[in-house]
Amino acid sequence: MPDPTRDACETRDAHDPLRPFRDEFVLPDGLIYLDGNSLGALPRHTAERVAHVVTQEWGQGLIRSWNDAGWFDKPRTLGDRVGGLIGAEPGTVVVCDSTSVNVFKALSAALSLRPDRDVIVGDRDNFPTDLYITQGLAGDHEHRLISVDGPSLAEVLDERVAVVLLTHVDYRTGRMYDMAAVTEQVHAAGALIVWDLCHSAGALPIDLDGCGADFAVGCTYKYINGGPGSPAFIHAATRHHEATQPLSGWHGHARPFEFTGTYEPAAGISRFLVGTPPLLSYAGLEASLDLWDRVDLTALRTKSLALTDLFIDLVDSRLGGRVEVATPRDHAVRGSQVSLRHEDGYAVMQALIARGVIGDFRAPDLIRFGFTPLYTSYVDVWDAVATLADVLETEEWRESRFAKRLLVT
Amino acid sequence: MPDPTRDACETRDAHDPLRPFRDEFVLPDGLIYLDGNSLGALPRHTAERVAHVVTQEWGQGLIRSWNDAGWFDKPRTLGDRVGGLIGAEPGTVVVCDSTSVNVFKALSAALSLRPDRDVIVGDRDNFPTDLYITQGLAGDHEHRLISVDGPSLAEVLDERVAVVLLTHVDYRTGRMYDMAAVTEQVHAAGALIVWDLCHSAGALPIDLDGCGADFAVGCTYKYINGGPGSPAFIHAATRHHEATQPLSGWHGHARPFEFTGTYEPAAGISRFLVGTPPLLSYAGLEASLDLWDRVDLTALRTKSLALTDLFIDLVDSRLGGRVEVATPRDHAVRGSQVSLRHEDGYAVMQALIARGVIGDFRAPDLIRFGFTPLYTSYVDVWDAVATLADVLETEEWRESRFAKRLLVT
Repeated sequence: MPDPTRDACETRDAHDPLRPFRDEFVLPDGLIYLDGNSLGALPRHTAERVAHVVTQEWGQGLIRSWNDAGWFDKPRTLGDRVGGLIGAEPGTVVVCDSTSVNVFKALSAALSLRPDRDVIVGDRDNFPTDLYITQGLAGDHEHRLISVDGPSLAEVLDERVAVVLLTHVDYRTGRMYDMAAVTEQVHAAGALIVWDLCHSAGALPIDLDGCGADFAVGCTYKYINGGPGSPAFIHAATRHHEATQPLSGWHGHARPFEFTGTYEPAAGISRFLVGTPPLLSYAGLEASLDLWDRVDLTALRTKSLALTDLFIDLVDSRLGGRVEVATPRDHAVRGSQVSLRHEDGYAVMQALIARGVIGDFRAPDLIRFGFTPLYTSYVDVWDAVATLADVLETEEWRESRFAKRLLVT
Repeated sequence: MPDPTRDACETRDAHDPLRPFRDEFVLPDGLIYLDGNSLGALPRHTAERVAHVVTQEWGQGLIRSWNDAGWFDKPRTLGDRVGGLIGAEPGTVVVCDSTSVNVFKALSAALSLRPDRDVIVGDRDNFPTDLYITQGLAGDHEHRLISVDGPSLAEVLDERVAVVLLTHVDYRTGRMYDMAAVTEQVHAAGALIVWDLCHSAGALPIDLDGCGADFAVGCTYKYINGGPGSPAFIHAATRHHEATQPLSGWHGHARPFEFTGTYEPAAGISRFLVGTPPLLSYAGLEASLDLWDRVDLTALRTKSLALTDLFIDLVDSRLGGRVEVATPRDHAVRGSQVSLRHEDGYAVMQALIARGVIGDFRAPDLIRFGFTPLYTSYVDVWDAVATLADVLETEEWRESRFAKRLLVT
């Protein structure tokens, strides 16, 4: 089958049912942004929402806005809306803290439910902060790691394992776990599972409740477009709301405004809250959720796979073996990104960015491209591959200006 | 001496060297805001700064702003500026997380430095989240409490005490600890001190380094005016930068963007960072610090004491024993708030708020008034007391509409 032409991509865009969403984002002129898996783009109406919180709710409402503007309940009201994106029933998600802090809480809670077990299992390819937090928490616990080419989950699961922490979609390769099957496998061993959804929430439909998941955490600044460092979320299934976690701050108290001297955890998911939430950042997330309330997640997944298929097909046919596709071709195990291996990947990505195509680089040799169905077009994909082909053919990435490490994330 | 007249207060305002700062805040018409010790008012230029971060740094800069807009270093650059308000040298403060989470980190770090000791000392009147977090952390540790009318610090300090956590200025009464003397006393017992500065940072000069303090935490949304839930700070003296804490997230790693599998704490204060920071909320704090860079903290303290003296004097002479002043009259142990006891304090405060004078209530019987020298005027104080006198004389607080609990914080 011949490559699709750019015209054909334009036609696909014209018929894309999600096409109207693109107009609701700010996308800088002359840029093809394929890094929404690191920081999502700005929804057009976010600035107005944030300005309202600053000038009206804070400036005019002052302390009264804790009640009048619903500030106190934001972790729960926004949590329920995030829950809608990840298949978690209302009352089982709160928005708060960072993913790292929430990993600490989720692992601690799981350990509190399995006091007779002392092993935490992770994946060597978990996002590093998941590994680091596990190490910080470990103490008397053993930390076992599985990996693609090392011990499998079946090999490490035994009666000592309390909890398994897995990144649903691998941040490097885009490989996706089968949530239902893995959750069932973990439960069969008597352990609990914590899913890190950073690279899947807002990228594809997730059915935590349907899979019987125990806990989940994730960020909202990637596919969900909540803004830089927008607050993370934590989910605990209703059956686990008796679990405890040591970050017992006042917002997790049963009656925080009675200012009693003894901690008494709130009923329900609120016991996973800790301190006062950063409300300007919540405003960014709230604005992005206004968009998500209107998104058909099945259509999102269909387009995501179509975009990544198109990217992979074009890479296969036009890049002449200069890169290796590191992302699974099987839809069932693919997230919403494609990663390519190139031994000088860092310089290649820098050269590509200089041409106005933004992806990112992950050591040692991966260049990553995130496809965000709400604002990525088929023409973006076509243009990105054409530019990458040109960068590789001309070898302009060998220019010395591309050799220095510039990108933070 | 006769009471000062309202005219006399106007004259004092006219000669107030801090008077120009008031014009740099948004203060709603018809409101006397004496709750800046709960949520500081909005600086006028904050909206513009936040909008810039949203529309330019995020909207146009996208992922590039982690480098180009200095996002990655914000916890440190803003931390150094907060350090200037609390007498902490550069490189010893980071802005991050909530006060509650930072208490957890500071206590953990102190415990790591005293592995042969197992007692944490607190004050029964510490802000509740400090007590709660200590309880959550305690585990094998003993938690001893001192109090105004109970065991003294001298009575509980022994060779088992690892760390003492004290709220510098009591959130209820405004009583202030002698930081230098207490720090010395704690050190003499071989223990470490963690100061909670929530009710003193931005309210008065603090000299952490001069006092030889070990750790400190605090919020930035009260006297510092960083906005609702703006990120908290944590300070560790340079000599304690080898301490460890279990919230070992990737932003505290020595090389976070190498994505290695093993946690290696950053050198210096950065090891107290955890996850990705909420940058819209940082923008609010950054704007407020632009003001603080120009504030003379000695003048701030002078005015703070003058405002609270004036309030106490007017209460004494005009409220005819209907309330009891719970705040120390001695300048040396007074923060920047005044609390009054009234058995129906909640209803009294509601009636006062209905008249446009905003303070708050703390159970069981305290009505609190915060005096923020950057924007509180002497006329505000005069008018507040006049209104309170009228509310008490007319007993309008007995109206049923004031009986229901409305205020969250």
